Amino acid sequence: MHAAKPLPSYLINRYKSWKTTTYLENEAWFRRLATEGQHPRAMVIACCDSRVNAISLFGAEQGEFFMHRNIASLVPPFNPDGEYHGTSAAVEYAVTGLGVAHIIVLGHSNCGGVAGCHDMCAGTAPQLEEKTSFVGRWMDILRPGYDRVKDIDDEASRRRALEKEAVVISLENLTGFPFIAEALDSGLLSLHGLWTDIEEGGLEHYVPETGFQPV
Amino acid sequence: MHAAKPLPSYLINRYKSWKTTTYLENEAWFRRLATEGQHPRAMVIACCDSRVNAISLFGAEQGEFFMHRNIASLVPPFNPDGEYHGTSAAVEYAVTGLGVAHIIVLGHSNCGGVAGCHDMCAGTAPQLEEKTSFVGRWMDILRPGYDRVKDIDDEASRRRALEKEAVVISLENLTGFPFIAEALDSGLLSLHGLWTDIEEGGLEHYVPETGFQPV
Amino acid sequence: MHAAKPLPSYLINRYKSWKTTTYLENEAWFRRLATEGQHPRAMVIACCDSRVNAISLFGAEQGEFFMHRNIASLVPPFNPDGEYHGTSAAVEYAVTGLGVAHIIVLGHSNCGGVAGCHDMCAGTAPQLEEKTSFVGRWMDILRPGYDRVKDIDDEASRRRALEKEAVVISLENLTGFPFIAEALDSGLLSLHGLWTDIEEGGLEHYVPETGFQPV
Amino acid sequence: MHAAKPLPSYLINRYKSWKTTTYLENEAWFRRLATEGQHPRAMVIACCDSRVNAISLFGAEQGEFFMHRNIASLVPPFNPDGEYHGTSAAVEYAVTGLGVAHIIVLGHSNCGGVAGCHDMCAGTAPQLEEKTSFVGRWMDILRPGYDRVKDIDDEASRRRALEKEAVVISLENLTGFPFIAEALDSGLLSLHGLWTDIEEGGLEHYVPETGFQPV
Repeated sequence: MHAAKPLPSYLINRYKSWKTTTYLENEAWFRRLATEGQHPRAMVIACCDSRVNAISLFGAEQGEFFMHRNIASLVPPFNPDGEYHGTSAAVEYAVTGLGVAHIIVLGHSNCGGVAGCHDMCAGTAPQLEEKTSFVGRWMDILRPGYDRVKDIDDEASRRRALEKEAVVISLENLTGFPFIAEALDSGLLSLHGLWTDIEEGGLEHYVPETGFQPV
Repeated sequence: MHAAKPLPSYLINRYKSWKTTTYLENEAWFRRLATEGQHPRAMVIACCDSRVNAISLFGAEQGEFFMHRNIASLVPPFNPDGEYHGTSAAVEYAVTGLGVAHIIVLGHSNCGGVAGCHDMCAGTAPQLEEKTSFVGRWMDILRPGYDRVKDIDDEASRRRALEKEAVVISLENLTGFPFIAEALDSGLLSLHGLWTDIEEGGLEHYVPETGFQPV
Repeated sequence: MHAAKPLPSYLINRYKSWKTTTYLENEAWFRRLATEGQHPRAMVIACCDSRVNAISLFGAEQGEFFMHRNIASLVPPFNPDGEYHGTSAAVEYAVTGLGVAHIIVLGHSNCGGVAGCHDMCAGTAPQLEEKTSFVGRWMDILRPGYDRVKDIDDEASRRRALEKEAVVISLENLTGFPFIAEALDSGLLSLHGLWTDIEEGGLEHYVPETGFQPV
Repeated sequence: MHAAKPLPSYLINRYKSWKTTTYLENEAWFRRLATEGQHPRAMVIACCDSRVNAISLFGAEQGEFFMHRNIASLVPPFNPDGEYHGTSAAVEYAVTGLGVAHIIVLGHSNCGGVAGCHDMCAGTAPQLEEKTSFVGRWMDILRPGYDRVKDIDDEASRRRALEKEAVVISLENLTGFPFIAEALDSGLLSLHGLWTDIEEGGLEHYVPETGFQPV
């Protein structure tokens, strides 16, 4: 692998600062976590977006959140076809391997992935329709959501509604995984849908009867 | 979606604490990030593991790291077959959409996903061989790595070597994406491989000539 | 331009060292910054003083701080009279062109410019009163600050208080720029006043209710 | 000043890291610098641009460079009219107060200020012509430079040539200050013009007979 480079020194310096502060004051806990394994209470499925950090948002500590992050925090439908399914693998490991009690799907405002899906479905981003577009094909997961919001006249409202549909569709797809359905039935797991507003620092959770509500 | 529940109140309380502290003191920055978009310097591909938090490890702030997290921080080979590829979509968005300057692959000690791959390849975890095992199929990405380490006698050393092979194979697979090869050629992107030891708080980076070295 | 000379070789040597180290390990980032432009989070207004380096003080990286440095880190009052206003131009570019989220005014101990203002206002530096003294006329910006501190008996305390008034007056003048007032109102910008002690390496920030406090 | 806010905690943390590393290992030097004053060898006039850090470029230490930074590293003509002249004040202080041996004017590629001047002079940025545009009025200093490069056909070459003219004009204006002319005549001062390329990390210095040459 001729292309890999050493870490830039500013990151090395910052790591050394972490080592002498965060690591040092949590050393016993890190050692316990290493020898006894992780027992996270929740899995969080969040977006890759650099502006949204669920660990900070919820003041989570080492060992607390099993974090999967992908474009637009999407969960594809259950489809055990023997191919690579990174999200499904993460969900399977969290529920059947680690026994998390919660799966939290966290959507957010100003989501570039959702915006791409909107434009693709609206016909203004044909490049995302191409078979070779990984982003376009990934956002296909959200296409059923576009159908639910396409009649909203105001564009900003439509885009925001689609961001929230991404959360709802992911929750729906999660219930299609047999091991999740089983854990839900036995009361060992609960699902939660959230959407956060980067600009205002707002947070809404999904209530099936009434839709998204400020927490 | 009958299954979704409101957020547990301990998380609501912690969020409210974030809102009055972290959000408030960074409010202008959050508003700028929302209105002007993200410009992260690096993409980090890390594991979902609750014990490893790259943002904390490198003291990164909002807007700095575009974070993808999956089981074992793996990148599958380039394969634009029109199916869902969450990792490939995240990489494509980071490089072609956001123009990140670095992709950092961060592996770690005590990785449950890598342990599963080891046992599967060693023949002691037949359940992971099943077509319906999402974790098993995902860890297929690392199979070529097992071949490289299988002759290491000491089991603990062999497992650790496989954790590091996960980073190397991901780096190798990254170079197979045409848009990454192009960005590397033009000097607009650099790749970095890291492995961190949870117990000791150690950090090693991959140097092609000599393998992993402490930073 | 008969007067310009080539660079002394010790600086050439040091530059070549930078090229093979800092540039090389950040090459992709420099290339991205060049092709995609800067998006600094903060503007820092600091003194020219060779002993105070805000970039080092805050571990800032390339692209992070838009730096204006003048004598005593002063901002003159808003006065769009069509003349050259280097500081006002820098502030305008930072806020309206680059959209920074923070303007940080950094004063410091042992400030020669502030000392000159003190002596001029105290009547012991008549040469600074002359129309042709650029330093004297520049320090006129701080005259209203002298009135606020002149009754402090102890001279060292009075000088130090004047250094901090330089920060406060600059903050006051900043709020007189319409585009800054507007950005403050919309929450897109925040102002911060700091004062650092060269000797002790101390840092204080300005809290309107209580004055300067150690961070 | 109701608007000032405390420093965001990430900057406080980074400052604390500086205090326990850079300050601590240079403590005696900082104390000397505070009690005995600064004696910088050179004044550097550089751009505010966040991507160009002369202190890093030349590996300069505390006390070494008296740094003035403004938009496009411009020096206006000598004009002692009793108004605020931040750049002239900085130059006066450096030469007559501190006795620096060098004034280095550092221009750079991808300069937003120079680009604005280019567009203003070319007639495509009328908003910069307005009296109330601080950036436009500041860039008036460079107008004579545009006349020298306007016949260059290739736009990219013309913009680059204008960036270098900004350095030359600043050097020319510097020689119009009587105290600089005097220091040059007596051999106590030398002037240097530099231009750095952000993308390539290149550095050129100005040689009057031949123009800019790679160092």
